[in-house]
Amino acid sequence: MKEIFSKRMKYVQPSAIRELLAMGAREDIISFGGGYPAPELFPVEAMKVVFEDVMDRVGTKALQYSLTEGIPELREKIAARMAKSGVPCESDDVIVVQGGQQGLDLIAKLYINPGDVIITEQPTFLGALIAFNPYEPQYKSIPMDEEGMRMDALEEALKETPNVKLIYTVPDFHNPTGITMSLERRKALIALANQYGVVVIEDTPYREIRYEGTPIPPIKHFDTEGRVIYLGSFSKILAPGMRLGWVSAEQTILQKIGLLKLAADTQSSTLNMYLAEGYMRLYDLDAHIEDIRTLYKKKKDLMVSIIQSEFPASVKYTNPEGGLFLWMTFPEEIRAEAFLKDHLIPKAKVAYVVGDGFYPLSPEYNHCRINYSGASEEQIIKGMTAFGHLLKEQMKYGV
Amino acid sequence: MKEIFSKRMKYVQPSAIRELLAMGAREDIISFGGGYPAPELFPVEAMKVVFEDVMDRVGTKALQYSLTEGIPELREKIAARMAKSGVPCESDDVIVVQGGQQGLDLIAKLYINPGDVIITEQPTFLGALIAFNPYEPQYKSIPMDEEGMRMDALEEALKETPNVKLIYTVPDFHNPTGITMSLERRKALIALANQYGVVVIEDTPYREIRYEGTPIPPIKHFDTEGRVIYLGSFSKILAPGMRLGWVSAEQTILQKIGLLKLAADTQSSTLNMYLAEGYMRLYDLDAHIEDIRTLYKKKKDLMVSIIQSEFPASVKYTNPEGGLFLWMTFPEEIRAEAFLKDHLIPKAKVAYVVGDGFYPLSPEYNHCRINYSGASEEQIIKGMTAFGHLLKEQMKYGV
Repeated sequence: MKEIFSKRMKYVQPSAIRELLAMGAREDIISFGGGYPAPELFPVEAMKVVFEDVMDRVGTKALQYSLTEGIPELREKIAARMAKSGVPCESDDVIVVQGGQQGLDLIAKLYINPGDVIITEQPTFLGALIAFNPYEPQYKSIPMDEEGMRMDALEEALKETPNVKLIYTVPDFHNPTGITMSLERRKALIALANQYGVVVIEDTPYREIRYEGTPIPPIKHFDTEGRVIYLGSFSKILAPGMRLGWVSAEQTILQKIGLLKLAADTQSSTLNMYLAEGYMRLYDLDAHIEDIRTLYKKKKDLMVSIIQSEFPASVKYTNPEGGLFLWMTFPEEIRAEAFLKDHLIPKAKVAYVVGDGFYPLSPEYNHCRINYSGASEEQIIKGMTAFGHLLKEQMKYGV
Repeated sequence: MKEIFSKRMKYVQPSAIRELLAMGAREDIISFGGGYPAPELFPVEAMKVVFEDVMDRVGTKALQYSLTEGIPELREKIAARMAKSGVPCESDDVIVVQGGQQGLDLIAKLYINPGDVIITEQPTFLGALIAFNPYEPQYKSIPMDEEGMRMDALEEALKETPNVKLIYTVPDFHNPTGITMSLERRKALIALANQYGVVVIEDTPYREIRYEGTPIPPIKHFDTEGRVIYLGSFSKILAPGMRLGWVSAEQTILQKIGLLKLAADTQSSTLNMYLAEGYMRLYDLDAHIEDIRTLYKKKKDLMVSIIQSEFPASVKYTNPEGGLFLWMTFPEEIRAEAFLKDHLIPKAKVAYVVGDGFYPLSPEYNHCRINYSGASEEQIIKGMTAFGHLLKEQMKYGV
C-alpha cells in the first residue's frame, strides 16, 4: 500500500520513554517511572455510594448524551474551586475535557500552524510535547533554576523569535523537576506575555497537592488581558481513570475550544461528570486532598531521607514542596539511560524515567525523574536503597 | 489581542444545525431532531450491579490510568463481536476510543493534508464533516439511491480526482437517510478502493440495530488489502454517556492511531471500559440489543403509519430496516429550514433537523432528518400528527 499518511505523522513517533516505561512495568520491578497517583487513596467505597446516588437521581441522564462543554452542575463546582484558588470564574468560563492531555491537544490545534513556536521549560512535560507535535511546531526551551523558568532567558527568546504563539508552563511542582515557579517569576511571565502578545498555557494538575510551604496564586490570577489558558485536572485529586480535566480561559478562546472539543469527541463522559460532581456533593474533596498531601509528604520525605543516606554525595536532587516527582541529576559521566538498562533494571529490579526525553531541544543525558506517589513505602525503602547502593558501586568502578 | 489562531480555524465554525437543535431542545417542544437512543432502555439498575462488581474486583485498577489502546478484557470482547459479525479479529486489532467521533478525528489527523480529498455520501453524517474540517480537506460527495452510494458516480469521482485519500461511508442505516448499502455495492466499493489505492472508513454505529430484513456483511468483510478502517460504537447499543467506541484496522494503521490517541487524550476512561466489559460479562448484551430492536421497530412503524395517514402524498420518506433515522423529502418549493422556524416550531411545537447541513457540497433544501428512537410513542403520535396537519395546511396555502 502506498504511503499516504499526512505530513504531520513525521512528528508522531513512538517515544523511547514509553518503551522504557514498559520495561519498568514488569511485575518483578519496582518502578518509580510512571506518574501514577497513590491507588491506596482512591475512594473505591465512596464511589459505590456516589454511583448508586447518581443512578437513582439522574440514571438515564447520566447514561445519555449531554453537552460538549460539560454538565452545568460540574462546571459550577469547578468554577467555585477556581475562584477559591484566586481566579474569578463562573461556570461558563470552564469547559470539561478528557483529562488535561486533551486540553493540550485542543489548544495546539487552536493556535499552531506548522513552524509556529511554542516556548517551554527545559526540561518540560513529555505529554505536552506528544500533544503538540502533530501540529508541527518549532520549540524554544528555557532553562530553569530553583524559582522555575528563567525570565532573562524567556525575554531573550521572545525578543529574537518572531513567531512565538504559546508559552507552555507547569508552574506548580513541575513535571519532571518538581520545581515551583516563584511569585515574582509569575508576575514577570505575565508582563512579558503582555508585552510580546503571546498566550500562556498554565498546566497545573498538581497544584492542590502542596504539602509544604505557602501556596502561590496561579499565573492566571495576574492575567489582565485574557492571555492565560488554565488547565486543571481531577486525575491527581480524585482518579485518573475517569479522564476528567478542565480548561478555563476567556470567552473567545473558550468558545473555539468548545468547537474543537465537539469535533474531537463530541463531549466527555456524561457518567463520569455526574460521578465527579456527585463525589463533591456527597463527600469532602478538600478533606480527601488533605489525605493525599499527608501521604505524599510522608513518601517524599522517606525517599529524600534514603537519597541522603544511601546515595553518592555527588548526586543532586530536587526536594519538592508538592506534586508527584523529584528530579535527580547524576554526575555528567553517568548516562541515565545506560545506567537504567544495563544496571538498575537487571541488577536491582528498579526503574525510573530517563530524563533526556523531557527536552524538546538540546537534551541532557544525566537526569532521571523519580515518582514517589505510586509506590508503597516498603517499595520506596527497598527500591531506593538498592538504587543508591548500585549507583555507589558503579561510581566506584566507573560506568 | 491580535488574531493568532491557526489557519485551520477558518474551517471550524459554529454549525447552524446545532443552533436549530438547541431551539428544538426547549422543554415545550417535541423534538425529532437529536440522535438520542431511547433512554427508557438504558440499563440503570444493571449498571448498579456492574459498578459494585467492578469496584469489588478491580476498584483501584478501574480508577487508575491504564493503556492507551484500552483494557485487554474489553478489547477481547469487542474483537469477539467483530468476528461474529464477519470480520476476523483479535483483541490487538482493536483500539478503544472516546466514541466513534474520536475515531473520525484521529483518522482525519492520520491521513489528511490540507487540500486532500475525502469522498462522502451525499448527504452524509454531519459529525463526520465537523471532525474532518479542522484538517482542511476538500470534499467530493456521491449521490445515493435506495442501495446506498452510487458506484458509477464513485468511479467517476475517483477517476477524475487525483488526491483522494479517504472514502467515508455509513453503510448500515445511514445517517441521515436511513438507507443501507446493498451487498453488491459493498463489493464494488472494495474493488474501486483497491483499484484506486484509497482507504475506506466504514462508520457503523447503527449496524446492530437491524429490526427487519437480512444483515449484510460489513464492508471490511470483503477487505483483502487492509484498506478498511472499521468504526464501531457502544453509544447506540449500551449508553452514549459512557463515550466508548472502537477502531479496527490493520496493524500499520492501528499503531499510528494509537500514537494519535496517546497524543489526543492519553486513553479512554478506564472506569467506563471496565463498566462496559462488566456489563457484557454479567448481562446479555445481545438480549439487550434485541429489546432495542423491538422498541425501535415499533416506534418506526408508528411513525411511518402516521406519515402515511396524516402527511401530504407528495412528501417522500425512507422506510429504514434499522437504525434511528428516516429522511423526509418535501416538494421542492418547501424549504425545510423556513418551514421549521416559521411554522413547525412556533405553531406545532415540533422540531426536526434541517437536511442541508448534511451536504458537504451542493446542499438540497427540501429535506429533513427525523429521529424515532428518542421520543416516546405518545410524543410520536402527537408530534407527527401535528407536523403532518401543518404541512398539509401550508401546502394548501403555499409557503
